[in-house]
Amino acid sequence: MKPINVGLLGIGTVGGGTFTVLSRNEAEITRRAGRPIRIVQVADKNLELAKQVAGGKVAVTDDAFAVVSNPEIDIVVELIGGYGVAKDLVLKAIENGKHVVTANKALLAVHGNEIFAAAQQKGVMVGFEAAVAGGIPIIKALREGLAANRIQWLAGIINGTTNFILSEMRDKGLSFDAVLKEAQRLGYAEADPTFDIEGIDAAHKLRIMAAIAFGIPMQFDKAYVEGISKLEAADIKYAEQLGYRIKLLGITRRKEAGVELRVHPTLIPAKRLIANVEGAMNAVLVQADAVGATLYYGKGAGAEPTASAVIADLVEVTRLHTADPQNRVPHLAFQPDRLSDVPVLPMAEVETAYYLRMRVQDKPGVLADITRILADSQISIDAMIQKEPAEGEGETDIIILTHVCKESAANTVIGKIEALAAVLGKVTRIRLEELQ
Amino acid sequence: MKPINVGLLGIGTVGGGTFTVLSRNEAEITRRAGRPIRIVQVADKNLELAKQVAGGKVAVTDDAFAVVSNPEIDIVVELIGGYGVAKDLVLKAIENGKHVVTANKALLAVHGNEIFAAAQQKGVMVGFEAAVAGGIPIIKALREGLAANRIQWLAGIINGTTNFILSEMRDKGLSFDAVLKEAQRLGYAEADPTFDIEGIDAAHKLRIMAAIAFGIPMQFDKAYVEGISKLEAADIKYAEQLGYRIKLLGITRRKEAGVELRVHPTLIPAKRLIANVEGAMNAVLVQADAVGATLYYGKGAGAEPTASAVIADLVEVTRLHTADPQNRVPHLAFQPDRLSDVPVLPMAEVETAYYLRMRVQDKPGVLADITRILADSQISIDAMIQKEPAEGEGETDIIILTHVCKESAANTVIGKIEALAAVLGKVTRIRLEELQ
Repeated sequence: MKPINVGLLGIGTVGGGTFTVLSRNEAEITRRAGRPIRIVQVADKNLELAKQVAGGKVAVTDDAFAVVSNPEIDIVVELIGGYGVAKDLVLKAIENGKHVVTANKALLAVHGNEIFAAAQQKGVMVGFEAAVAGGIPIIKALREGLAANRIQWLAGIINGTTNFILSEMRDKGLSFDAVLKEAQRLGYAEADPTFDIEGIDAAHKLRIMAAIAFGIPMQFDKAYVEGISKLEAADIKYAEQLGYRIKLLGITRRKEAGVELRVHPTLIPAKRLIANVEGAMNAVLVQADAVGATLYYGKGAGAEPTASAVIADLVEVTRLHTADPQNRVPHLAFQPDRLSDVPVLPMAEVETAYYLRMRVQDKPGVLADITRILADSQISIDAMIQKEPAEGEGETDIIILTHVCKESAANTVIGKIEALAAVLGKVTRIRLEELQ
Repeated sequence: MKPINVGLLGIGTVGGGTFTVLSRNEAEITRRAGRPIRIVQVADKNLELAKQVAGGKVAVTDDAFAVVSNPEIDIVVELIGGYGVAKDLVLKAIENGKHVVTANKALLAVHGNEIFAAAQQKGVMVGFEAAVAGGIPIIKALREGLAANRIQWLAGIINGTTNFILSEMRDKGLSFDAVLKEAQRLGYAEADPTFDIEGIDAAHKLRIMAAIAFGIPMQFDKAYVEGISKLEAADIKYAEQLGYRIKLLGITRRKEAGVELRVHPTLIPAKRLIANVEGAMNAVLVQADAVGATLYYGKGAGAEPTASAVIADLVEVTRLHTADPQNRVPHLAFQPDRLSDVPVLPMAEVETAYYLRMRVQDKPGVLADITRILADSQISIDAMIQKEPAEGEGETDIIILTHVCKESAANTVIGKIEALAAVLGKVTRIRLEELQ
């Protein structure tokens, strides 16, 4: 059969990986797809690099718009990233009737609704398996594998940089700052790590998964996002003593009143499989009504793992590009005219359990005052540690694990505890999920 | 759009689950599939049960052949099981131009090649996600999600009964027989458990996965199959002391000379994620060249988890039944004319590491004799335990972990060790995989 022609925008890490894997596994991929998939044009601002990677076998240009308008090309692979020119290129490719495969989670999280609508109108596909959790086929699992289910919630370790940092903090008892420096040295964290450590990257991926899990449009600005930069080594240690690990989770849960959508450091029981996902690995735990809990684990970033997902999409488009568009898998899992308008819940309405750590003066009555405040708000205590004060110190730490309550109730309680004269400074609050 | 009409053969556990989930999630599934999927006829030898489950809303018959010949029906779901009438029904349904969805691993492992060829010829699909690892979408992951990759090996906990038994033996320090009785009482094991405990069920599932992973036809009789019924509690304890857990794994690996295909109890490092898959849960670890290691975890059996996979296939067929057959995903992942004839390696050619336990007389020179035998066959020792003999006993246990060697070399060595006068009885041999 006639080969499928691909135009590649961006020959950086993932672009290079896509090129490499597509060449190395050409025979195997053709045996699966039923026809060759070949890159016929590459665009990159760095022409020299592009020539070097493409190795003279493929046309190279520094004009990405030439690729999206090239009549020879069936599928455009967008690996430029960001919300800027990438958006224009993707929309232009769609306008020109080309299918698109992208790893750009930021673009989809922010402009996904517009892009999918344009693709729907032109009858082309936009593949984005590579946008979430790298090489783990989680989009396919959620969109097709679990199609029988009402998905109830999902929780994912979907940022490798932060999981690496948290694993190192726990293993070595080091501070966040010390581990971040090490991660930057090893190439696990960017020079400007904000995007990762503040949870923004995880939030982009979470929005995409929530849309697919629940059949709702992308909701850009409604997620609660809290990163790991303020986490202290002491809390990781106390959590461990209580049988928990701290992970940066993206969590989305369907409730009666709406959908929870949140990224924050989370205590989870150490014995859960997902608590044992270490280093830069990713994992997504999905709870659905028929199948129960399923978990998907693998590398969430890197040249070849991400290329694996890009090429899976290329094979899929190769198979389905001649199919009647209405028989293809819908971009957001549910038919576009059947998306739901269920709202995203404000964080105050979210229900979760809490780890609370407070520094207190070591004198009688303090604990009684604190537990009274919790009882007045009808928040039950699940576990507690009161440390012996260090020799000669008049201060100590109290750690409390609460049962599940509304975030608004937790906010009230924390305010009241901080107002106690015997409580010094702020209460450290980390959310806790049993994930059962 | 016009509904898709389904005929259901067998209304037992999985049939009932399929009925329940399809009704309960009707709205959600229709929003995904783009059209209603409805069961219009049910066949079961137990007419009363069928009427009870189908609740008067659906035509019921005790003649399964009436269903596969019903011109109203688009898809036949075969949940009868076994190699007998199920085969005739599936082939008849295909002959009548109907798509088939089945959970019958035994049927596919034995007659898959014939069934897929018939389906190919008639241009219909045979979905079998439910045949392997229940609700985990592992077929989809292997066949589509990892389509970019050259899969190197996979190792799966793909039988819940045996994993439950092994978990209980380890947790409670009980013997195989005691735990089997408990498992039977709890409904985790059948009255005749042979199929599960001797590894036959796992071997069926492994054959299906190997075919898809490597693009080879089903190979029924060439797997090495060893169950867990001879495992002793002592070996689980010694393994634990050495940092390992024992799991019944289905392993298939691509080597230069052929494909390894084997089911046996296996020591795996306790820190691996898959070593921590407990109770009746299933998990499959896949090593592929681009993506690296990915793991898929969930319930491998039960009414609704299996129904989840059956219905995922129904949605898939609903989408693709009008597509040009040559653009659908091939049954065995690779195009049928592009399957490979790579042989399955005989067990003697398999390479793995070993746990060897032997009972010896406690006298000088025994250990020297044993290590000499290993050295002569150039098998390196990775770790060793020699127990202090119990008070007043002149016997003790020696446990040796070897490095990787050929099974034939291990056989030779074991024969020589057993021939030593100071070695009492047989050597216990359990294979060991680092899974890295």
